[in-house]
Formats: sequence, C-alpha cells, structure tokens
Amino acid sequence: MNDGSYENCQAVRPVLVGGAWQPASSSEIFQACNPATGQKLPEIYPVSAWPDLEKTLLESQRVCLEVAATPPEKIARFLNLYADLLEKNQEAITTMAHLETALPLKSRLRSTEFPRMINQLRQAAAAVEERSWCQATIDTRLNIRSKYGPLGGAVVIFSPNNFPLAFNAVAGSDLASAVAAGNPVICKAHPAHPGTTRLMAESLLEALNRAGLPASTVQMLYHFSLDDGFRLVSHQAVAAVAFTGSRAAGLKLKEVTEGSGKLFYGELSSVNPVFFLPGILKEKAGPVALELFSSCSLGCGQFCTKPGLIVLVNDEAGRRFLWRLQQIFNQPLAGYLLSQVVLENLKNAVEKLKTAGALLLAGGNQIPDCGFRFQTTLFAISGEQFLKDPGAFQQEAFGTLAVAVVAQDVEEMLKIAENLEGNLTASIYSSHSDPQDEEIYRKLEPVLRLKVGRLLNDKMPTGVAVSPAMHHGGPFPATGHPGFTSVGIPAAFLRFAARHCYDNVSEDRLPEELRARNPNGRMWRLVDGHWTRSDL
Amino acid sequence: MNDGSYENCQAVRPVLVGGAWQPASSSEIFQACNPATGQKLPEIYPVSAWPDLEKTLLESQRVCLEVAATPPEKIARFLNLYADLLEKNQEAITTMAHLETALPLKSRLRSTEFPRMINQLRQAAAAVEERSWCQATIDTRLNIRSKYGPLGGAVVIFSPNNFPLAFNAVAGSDLASAVAAGNPVICKAHPAHPGTTRLMAESLLEALNRAGLPASTVQMLYHFSLDDGFRLVSHQAVAAVAFTGSRAAGLKLKEVTEGSGKLFYGELSSVNPVFFLPGILKEKAGPVALELFSSCSLGCGQFCTKPGLIVLVNDEAGRRFLWRLQQIFNQPLAGYLLSQVVLENLKNAVEKLKTAGALLLAGGNQIPDCGFRFQTTLFAISGEQFLKDPGAFQQEAFGTLAVAVVAQDVEEMLKIAENLEGNLTASIYSSHSDPQDEEIYRKLEPVLRLKVGRLLNDKMPTGVAVSPAMHHGGPFPATGHPGFTSVGIPAAFLRFAARHCYDNVSEDRLPEELRARNPNGRMWRLVDGHWTRSDL
Repeated sequence: MNDGSYENCQAVRPVLVGGAWQPASSSEIFQACNPATGQKLPEIYPVSAWPDLEKTLLESQRVCLEVAATPPEKIARFLNLYADLLEKNQEAITTMAHLETALPLKSRLRSTEFPRMINQLRQAAAAVEERSWCQATIDTRLNIRSKYGPLGGAVVIFSPNNFPLAFNAVAGSDLASAVAAGNPVICKAHPAHPGTTRLMAESLLEALNRAGLPASTVQMLYHFSLDDGFRLVSHQAVAAVAFTGSRAAGLKLKEVTEGSGKLFYGELSSVNPVFFLPGILKEKAGPVALELFSSCSLGCGQFCTKPGLIVLVNDEAGRRFLWRLQQIFNQPLAGYLLSQVVLENLKNAVEKLKTAGALLLAGGNQIPDCGFRFQTTLFAISGEQFLKDPGAFQQEAFGTLAVAVVAQDVEEMLKIAENLEGNLTASIYSSHSDPQDEEIYRKLEPVLRLKVGRLLNDKMPTGVAVSPAMHHGGPFPATGHPGFTSVGIPAAFLRFAARHCYDNVSEDRLPEELRARNPNGRMWRLVDGHWTRSDL
Repeated sequence: MNDGSYENCQAVRPVLVGGAWQPASSSEIFQACNPATGQKLPEIYPVSAWPDLEKTLLESQRVCLEVAATPPEKIARFLNLYADLLEKNQEAITTMAHLETALPLKSRLRSTEFPRMINQLRQAAAAVEERSWCQATIDTRLNIRSKYGPLGGAVVIFSPNNFPLAFNAVAGSDLASAVAAGNPVICKAHPAHPGTTRLMAESLLEALNRAGLPASTVQMLYHFSLDDGFRLVSHQAVAAVAFTGSRAAGLKLKEVTEGSGKLFYGELSSVNPVFFLPGILKEKAGPVALELFSSCSLGCGQFCTKPGLIVLVNDEAGRRFLWRLQQIFNQPLAGYLLSQVVLENLKNAVEKLKTAGALLLAGGNQIPDCGFRFQTTLFAISGEQFLKDPGAFQQEAFGTLAVAVVAQDVEEMLKIAENLEGNLTASIYSSHSDPQDEEIYRKLEPVLRLKVGRLLNDKMPTGVAVSPAMHHGGPFPATGHPGFTSVGIPAAFLRFAARHCYDNVSEDRLPEELRARNPNGRMWRLVDGHWTRSDL
C-alpha cells in the first residue's frame, strides 16, 4: 500500500471533501492493481490522514440540518441526475471497473451491474418522491402523528470489493438509502477500485451541484487507516455506519460503532446453505448440479450470496450427485479473483478446511498465472464431521469454493440445519411430487426459517432482485440486525431513519407528510388504522 | 439484598421456570421494602444463581420453534385471557403494588396504571389477530414475499422500578410485544416489587396453560447478579434484550449484549427538555408553571418522560415565570420515592448539580421520615453555565427535580438546543399569535426534531398514549436505536421481529399471511406497491 512518500509524487488524486476535490492530507499513497495481470495501475491515490477525516466530519455536521430540510423532490432530482450522468459516463466507468476488478466487461459490468446500479438510483428517486417509505402514521383522535425522518448525523459507508458499481460506497444501495432518508454521507471507497469510485464521484458532485443540494451532502475518501476509521465512526457527527466486508473487520467496527452509541449495519458473512432433498436428486441431479456450479462460480465465487455449503443425504442419488459435482468442479475454467487479499484468504480457507479434515474433491490450488487465479474447488465432509465442529465449516471465503456436507440420513440433515449460524439465505431443493421430500421440507423449513433472511425454493441464492419485497439481511453473524435489509427499496432506507413523532402539533407546523392534505395524492399513510392515499 | 442464607429460610418464593413454580437455585435472598415506612415486607424472594438462569435458557431454546409456530389466534387468546385473569386479581395486585412502591393506590395504580396495562395487553391481542403488524409485502411478478416473524431466540426483559404494572417485565409492553412476535421470553422482575410481579406471573402461567401455549413461553426470575445477567444475555439461546433502567447499568448491558451479536433495546435516560418561548410566558406564565410542576412531580418525578430541563429566556416574563416556579416548587408536598436506591441517586444528583454551580431555588434536602422522601427541588443555571459543560446538566434523576436554564437571549436558547443529547421528548411552549414566537419556533424546531423521538407543542411529555402513532424512543443515549418504539402497538412488536423473505416458494408452503387469500380479510398487505385488504 505504501509505495513512497506523498511529496515525491505529483499526481496524487485529490479527495472529495466539503463539496470540492481537495488535495488529501496524507503521508501514504496506494495504487490499484489489475487482477488479471497482477500489475499496478498507474493512478496514484492518497491514504488520508486524520485531518481529512476530521474535515468530512465537520462538513457533515455543518450541512446536517440543511440536508434534513431538503424537499424530497430535490433529493429525487439529485438521484435521477446522478443516474443520468453515470449513464453518460458508462463507457469510462465500466472500462475502469474492468481494469480494477477483472470482472467481465460485457456480461457482468455493462449488461448486469451497471444497469442494476442505475435502476437502484432511479427506484430510490421514485420512492423518495412518492414518500410512502416514511410510513406516516396518524391518530386523528389524539392528534399524535409519526413518520420516519433523518437520523441527525452522518452515515459512514464502507463499501465492499466485490461490486464496484452497484454496491460502491458512492453509488450503491447504501448511498441511495442514506441520502433518500435525508442524511449527509461520508463514503470510504474500496481501495481495490479507487479509479471506478473516482469517476463515479465526479458525476456525483456534478449531480449534487446541479440539483442544488449542499455540495457536502456526500463526501468521499479513498482510504484511511483502521485506527482512523474507528475514530471516525466514534465521532459525534456520525449517526450510523454501513459496512459490507469481512467478518473480522466488521466485528471490530461494530464494537467501536455501537460502543459509541451509533447504529451499525453490517453485512458480515454468509455461507448460504443449499439443501438438496433426496427426491429432487433422484429426479434431476444433472441440471441441479450445473445450476449449483453456475451460482457458486458466478463472479468467480465472490458474491455474498454464493452457495458455499451444500447439504445432501448419503443415498444412491446423493452419491451420484456428488460425483457429478466433482466432475463439474474439476473443469479447468476459473476467472480472476478481485485482489491478492482475496487470493490469500481463499488459500487460507482451503488450508483450514484441509486441516479440519475435509476431503478435497476438486481444485485446491492457485493457478500459476501473473493474475490472481485459483482452481474451482470442492470439498466434502460427513455430517458427523460437520456436527463435531460446525464453526470450522461455516467460514465464508470468496472464490469458487464449496463444501458438501453428506448427511448419513434425514435426521442428521436436520441436525446440521440446527447447527447453522445466521445466514443471508438458505435454499431447499425438493421434489414437489415426492411425498417424502414434502415431509422432510415440513421439518426442515421451520428450522432454516429462523436462521436466514431469505428462504428460497428450487432456486440458487445469487440473484438478489431489487424489489420492495426483497430482504437481503439475516440473523447474526450474517448481519447485525435481522430486521433490516440492504437491498430492496424503500425498505433499505429504514436503516438510516429515526422515528419522528409529533404530539399536539398544529397543522401549519407539521411536516407535509403528516398534514391533512396528502402531499402528492400518491403517498400511502396509515390513518386511524387504515392505509389510504386520501386526504384526512 | 443478602439477608441470610437460603437454607435458614423455609418460605423463599419459588421461581417460574420451565412452566412451573420451582424452588430457586439460590444462596441469597431479598425482601421488598415499603417505601412509605422504610420497613421490609415479609415475603422472601430468591436471588437466583446460574443454574436457574441456565434452566430458563435451555427451556426457551426447547420451545422456541413451537412458540414461533403458534397460530396468531392462540397468542391473542393468551393475551386476552391474561388480561381477564389480571382483572380478576386487580385488588390483590394493586394493593401489593401500593405496598411495594408507595404509588397512590386509587389515583395512580387502580385508575391509571392498571387499566393501561390491561388495555395494552388487549390492544396487542387485537393486533396479533389482525396480523397487519407483520407488514406482509408481496411482489407478484417476481414471486418474492416478505413479512416480519420471530427472532429465533429468547427475548430477555429487564423491567424498571417505576411502573410496577404497565411496564412490569411479566405484563408490560415489552412482554406483550415479544410474545406477539412469536418469541419465548425470560423476564427479570424488578427487585423493588417482587410481590406484584409474583401475583401477575401466577395469572400469566394460568393464561399460558389455558390458551394452550407452551408453558415455558414466558419464564420469570426475581433477581440475579450482574455477572450472571451478562452471562445470560450472551447465551446463544438469546436473540434480544429489552432493558428499561439507569444509563450506567444499561450501557454495560448494551455492550455485552451487542458484543455477542444480539439486539439491545434500551431505554436509558432522558431529561425531556421543555422550551418556553418568550411570548407564551407573557401570555400565561401562571397556568404554564402549574402545568410544568404537575408533570414534573407526577409519580413523584419518577417518569422516564419527566420534564427535567427547562429552558427560557432571561426577560421580564421569563424572570417572573421562574419566580412563580420557585414558589410552586417550594410547596411542602412530596410523595414517596420508590426505593432507597432512588433516594440515594437523587441526593447524589442534587450534590452534583450544586458542585457544578447550579443555584438552588427550592428544596434540595431529604425529608426526615421513616419512608423515602425528598423535597421538591428546583435549580437554576445560566445559559452560559449550561454551554460550558452541557453534560453536567443533562443527568437524569428520578424525583421531583428540575433544572431551569436561563438563556440570555434567543440565540443562546438555540445554542442550548444544539448542545442537547438525544432525548425521548422535547416540548415547545409558544404563543401561536405572537409572530416572534413563531419565528423562534421555526429555528428551534429543526434542531430539536433531530434530537428527540417525540416533539410536543404546548403539552407536557409525561402522558405517553398507547396509540399506533405514538413513538416512545429517541436518539442515543435516550435509547439504543431511534427507529424503534417501546410504546405503541403494533410498532413496538418490531423490536422483536426478523424480516422473513420467501423467494420462489409455492403457495402451499407459504405462511398464511403471504398466500393469495387474505387470511382474515382484515389484514393490510402491501401488494405490488398498493396497501390492500383484498386477496391477490
């Protein structure tokens, strides 16, 4: 990360602080790396020192009330303008993202992730304008009225390495949600794709200015030390933190954030177990094995919803299915991992699984290449092994890596389910015409239901649709709070909202959403127990 | 607390564990005290040792899935039956509560708090049956459906000293909410009113049995050590903690609870600032002063919404108002405090205020009496004093104690608002016909809005109506999360709920709330962006 001193370097990129691109206060620099070549990319970025962080905090504090008072139409205009500008710059952004992440340019970045990001911003804009998200609740008899509103402090967003566009701190669901709810935002770019973040932040600043929002509404730093990060989230100007990343880093950040009385929303880890009931493997082991591999290897296995744990029963069909899986995983195909760090984590995970006694069925080794590549890898363990040390086999690792747990019978399969940690998702594949599968489902489902956010049937977990009915979250350690989702609009807004109650406040002093007249005729409000779009 | 060993004592009350009254595992005992006489009450209660706590945990774990699968009608039946049984035993319960708390029997316990508790249980029952609380959200196009459901672990409730009925761990809003959402519950009684809790828990067990719920759905211990409490909330059988009490104890419990990945809902402290704008004090200083005193002294100043901080401007009307307040607070009237602990805290708070330089205008001393009494007490400080050390003057203390902050002008009043911590409530009294007050309001309101859960106009904060539009919560340190309320049904349920998403799950495998048919024709569901009671 430290490639020389700041002084020796003329071209260090400025940071976005206080509504302008300013030279960073920094004594360290870093460069991104092309994962396909292992070569450093030319642009030079600063590791911000505390003065940069402090400036963002003071600026957030300065504009907090103004951001909170910004009319929804203006926020919506910003989000739409931002989407427009990003679309204008799509070519440059996706090209840079491809360079920095080695994710496929056409199939992934251009045709999937970029449109998803744009769609998310526009959905957020529409939801802000519609206003139903704030769940206006009115008791006309007692004249008590409540709605969700801003937190009254900055939201700090730490973005992950695996979605340089749709979950980027400056353009993803967290950003859209935090701004939608009326909060100032401090973004920490992921140091694996600073160039992508820079290009998008340029559009962002232009959109802020053109929409007339305070220019400091969103600020961005490329990088800072762990200790400065802890100091940042503990500052009184901060109200909440959104973190997507590794469990170890996330837990430490959670402790510091919550210890100082702030809200922590973390997406920490998930192995997304997939249960294959005996009937479905008798019916169609082949297509299902392909489906699993396709989901597991999507984005080179670097999805938070990657199916990393497979549970099946050791019968004839189960054994045949495992054999098929082994064949598929032994394909020589393997994309690039996002970074050296991801590669090292994956190597560690494989070593740990070996040490824990897992049987290697496919892959297991780094691929000699100047870029970051690893074989598609499959392990198998017995149900007994899993139950002896369930924690050892539930460690999330990016990469096309899965662990198959072979239960000796259905009862053991249920015990395995009982010993799962909290996860984002669980899938059950079953035959709907097989009464035995149906019976197992009725026992298995209630156990899994309480351990995951999203329960899927006959479907792999990697697709996370941006729908109001989506829930992307789950019990600890998948996330810090199982009641909140990070994907799905407008529900994702609620992470960054406080409930604001008005007791005996006269009409002219109420916010528009709580007055007699429905502010736009479209907003849903809960009036005396009835959801309605009418005026009072 | 330790009045001898368990062995020497034959009549130690059993604890409610595993659906039965069982002898406690305990080496310590305690007795409640009549605050009006300072005398110990005869009944002897155990301080449970770890084996008791462990039993409740294992029982909660055992019944967790069964409680989660209990039909809403059955849970509603339990809540209603419980209310019925409590009503039958009202005389005994309120008499015991009066003995243990010295709260007025007729005006408070019988005619206010008891009916509130019953009303809350019945409202919860109605909301459980109606089912709208789970916010069923359906995307018919993508076949993704979500609703709130149980957490998958026990809720531990620590109840406060100040509402022996309506916020009692075994019968208050927390209990009703946690059970309504389908969770097993472990209650810790407040050691100041074990007899009241015992009488209610007897009705509770009968109601559980008659309604056919697992008898271990709710368990109750009278008391345990701090360390055992930490061990309890860290246990894997626990999903969430609800705590109402002091900030010091609450913060420690928050740290341990969140550190082990569980949810913490704490009501920690609030001074509930009341701002009097110049115009209203010109218009009606007299009635307003009486109103303030009446709210501040309600329940002998032992409400979490007690107005403890008063802010006014040092003009002619302000000074006259303060003088009137001084007269009123100098009345010899004073009720009984709840316990020796409350009395000591109050004495400490008064000493600290004196040390911090506050000017004593009324009271300030313990009243010589065998019971726990303290004079109604009023302090004054300048705005400048407040701004020099805002923390020193925002320490919550039970008792009829208020601090008046006299700002030199409106600008200083605004600065005082900016330096407030998070609070449950803030009130603004203003003249609606005075343009100057209106102008001040427009500046003051946005600042206060982001610092409190409930903003009142021309009204004291002590009345907390049980309405769906109520919000009893606020930014840290008032509570741990400003998005959740502990009063108001059904919103209070959401603290103890996880979001459950169903992706590609067929009709017959969906919970009733997410199927095509509206399960009761009354439930509100958000279907493709429209709130409706219709079938799909």
